[in-house]
Amino acid sequence: MIDNIKLSPGADAVVIVDQTRLPREEVYLELREAEELYRAIFELQVRGAPAIGIFAGYALYVLARSIGEKDFQRTLREQAAYLGSARPTAVNLSWALDRMLKTAAGHRRDKALKLMYEECCQIQQEDVAVCRAIAEYGLTLVKDGDGILTHCNAGPLATSRYGTGLGALILGQERGYRFKVFCDETRPLLQGARLTAYELMEAGIDTTLICDNMAGMVMQQGRLQACFVGCDRVAANGDTANKVGTSSVAVLAAYYKVPFYVFCPTSTIDLRCRTGKDIVIEERSGEEIYTKYFEKPTAPEGVKCYNPAFDVTENSLITAIVTEKGICRAPYTDSLKRIMR
Amino acid sequence: MIDNIKLSPGADAVVIVDQTRLPREEVYLELREAEELYRAIFELQVRGAPAIGIFAGYALYVLARSIGEKDFQRTLREQAAYLGSARPTAVNLSWALDRMLKTAAGHRRDKALKLMYEECCQIQQEDVAVCRAIAEYGLTLVKDGDGILTHCNAGPLATSRYGTGLGALILGQERGYRFKVFCDETRPLLQGARLTAYELMEAGIDTTLICDNMAGMVMQQGRLQACFVGCDRVAANGDTANKVGTSSVAVLAAYYKVPFYVFCPTSTIDLRCRTGKDIVIEERSGEEIYTKYFEKPTAPEGVKCYNPAFDVTENSLITAIVTEKGICRAPYTDSLKRIMR
Repeated sequence: MIDNIKLSPGADAVVIVDQTRLPREEVYLELREAEELYRAIFELQVRGAPAIGIFAGYALYVLARSIGEKDFQRTLREQAAYLGSARPTAVNLSWALDRMLKTAAGHRRDKALKLMYEECCQIQQEDVAVCRAIAEYGLTLVKDGDGILTHCNAGPLATSRYGTGLGALILGQERGYRFKVFCDETRPLLQGARLTAYELMEAGIDTTLICDNMAGMVMQQGRLQACFVGCDRVAANGDTANKVGTSSVAVLAAYYKVPFYVFCPTSTIDLRCRTGKDIVIEERSGEEIYTKYFEKPTAPEGVKCYNPAFDVTENSLITAIVTEKGICRAPYTDSLKRIMR
Repeated sequence: MIDNIKLSPGADAVVIVDQTRLPREEVYLELREAEELYRAIFELQVRGAPAIGIFAGYALYVLARSIGEKDFQRTLREQAAYLGSARPTAVNLSWALDRMLKTAAGHRRDKALKLMYEECCQIQQEDVAVCRAIAEYGLTLVKDGDGILTHCNAGPLATSRYGTGLGALILGQERGYRFKVFCDETRPLLQGARLTAYELMEAGIDTTLICDNMAGMVMQQGRLQACFVGCDRVAANGDTANKVGTSSVAVLAAYYKVPFYVFCPTSTIDLRCRTGKDIVIEERSGEEIYTKYFEKPTAPEGVKCYNPAFDVTENSLITAIVTEKGICRAPYTDSLKRIMR
């Protein structure tokens, strides 16, 4: 099990595995100073929405310990604002910092530190519990020996223990299931190769790396019994946004009659968003396609690129959406509303 | 228009564009000596089945010019055997060398050289004519302004002028059609990024590079009116082997109702091969997936990979197969037999 985020034994530093140096180097960082905690978020040494929230809780606690009695609350708010500015669009970052500030508010330093310590541990424990519940539900959908395809990364590195999409696989492995997991490399940023393959191999799971365009062939050969993916946002009708390529996996899975499962905490379900059409897709620089990670540019200079970061999978292609509160099936407009009550 | 293979003005050298240095460097090589001609084939400075055949014809002619009257035929056969050993499994290589040897056989040096010159020019002209005919038929399937997806490389570099899958696009551009071509980068060897994007941009075509896993999203957005791919082998029932990922494009195209066209010379149709199940798929080293082209390995050391070079597209997913003799449609068992008569 990778311990991706924790407090140091003396609780005076946050210890993380540096995700930018994986998979070839497993480097742990002990972070104490505001600047290095900020940099860890900004430079993606810690990444994944829940992981950023957990990290932020510990980070603010560590910083709070160095603040004196005088002006404690004001300085704490300044430190929180500073950390929060590292990735202003990361919802979990501001959510966790706000939660920590509310916990401390109105208390003197010593009492505030005690409550904050409990709160940041609580944030991580809640995430562990959510991931664990998702994993338990997910495990009811597969059986020993199944071949399972993953796309992108929805593992422990992005969360706390277990992860979402990978949770059932890791939990199953602990219980003696022997899955055969095929791992899409996930172009252009290669999260599947860099992170998912690493996490699965660390967990001792039989892992095979493929290029994204090989998933269809693996299905054609009858080697897959399920597809497991995470997601970034679920609309009220069950349309699901996730890393680009996910919707193609879903189309292929439907054609080859392989069940396609989406895994997410209920915090990802956005009932105010009616359908996938309401989800704005982030478009990123073409350089990610033809220069990033490569020794030499792969395409002619000046080539035009289209690089959407996410795509939307239509609800009709999704066999089930697995949350910590249970498994939703079509019609999603009903099942999602029910689970969110 | 890229002149990928030709004789030098004095007809004493073969001139090629070095495909290993594309797309960032456009380097032309003048090759005279047996060793450098051999190396050009062996090191893939020239690649693509028809292109290798054309090159071999010119190469043997250039070598023949330096052979004296004495022992002309025997030395010529030795040189042909030497060139042929550069890529023993390339059918077009041995086919072209045999054709050149037969042309020279039984003639004295001067007469043989004259006949060989005509023959090697003829090999290229035949390929130009075949590609041209395929392009003309292909152009009847699309209209000005269409969005077209390509996968891998089936362009002029692999053939002579025009290419197969790209022929209609280049011919259309010459005639004032304005296509919007989306070009799959084609992992793991990136032929789409390295070669197809280069060829399309050289031809002045509006080209957009995407990762393989983005093709489905482009279809979902309604931006594609057709998919154009080449192929390596067509079975009697119309099942088609081509670069891995092609069959996934076909499944996506069927789902999004985009016509899916396969382009090939009739020499690629193998009626002795009954279905796609009879086609053996070459499996290549996993290092192509996680180290080749990259600055650093993308996946953990010792990762297991599955790296099939080709996949088979079922005939039911193919809208039409376009050859130099006409366009075949389902049922392919009938239409292919008819065209091969």
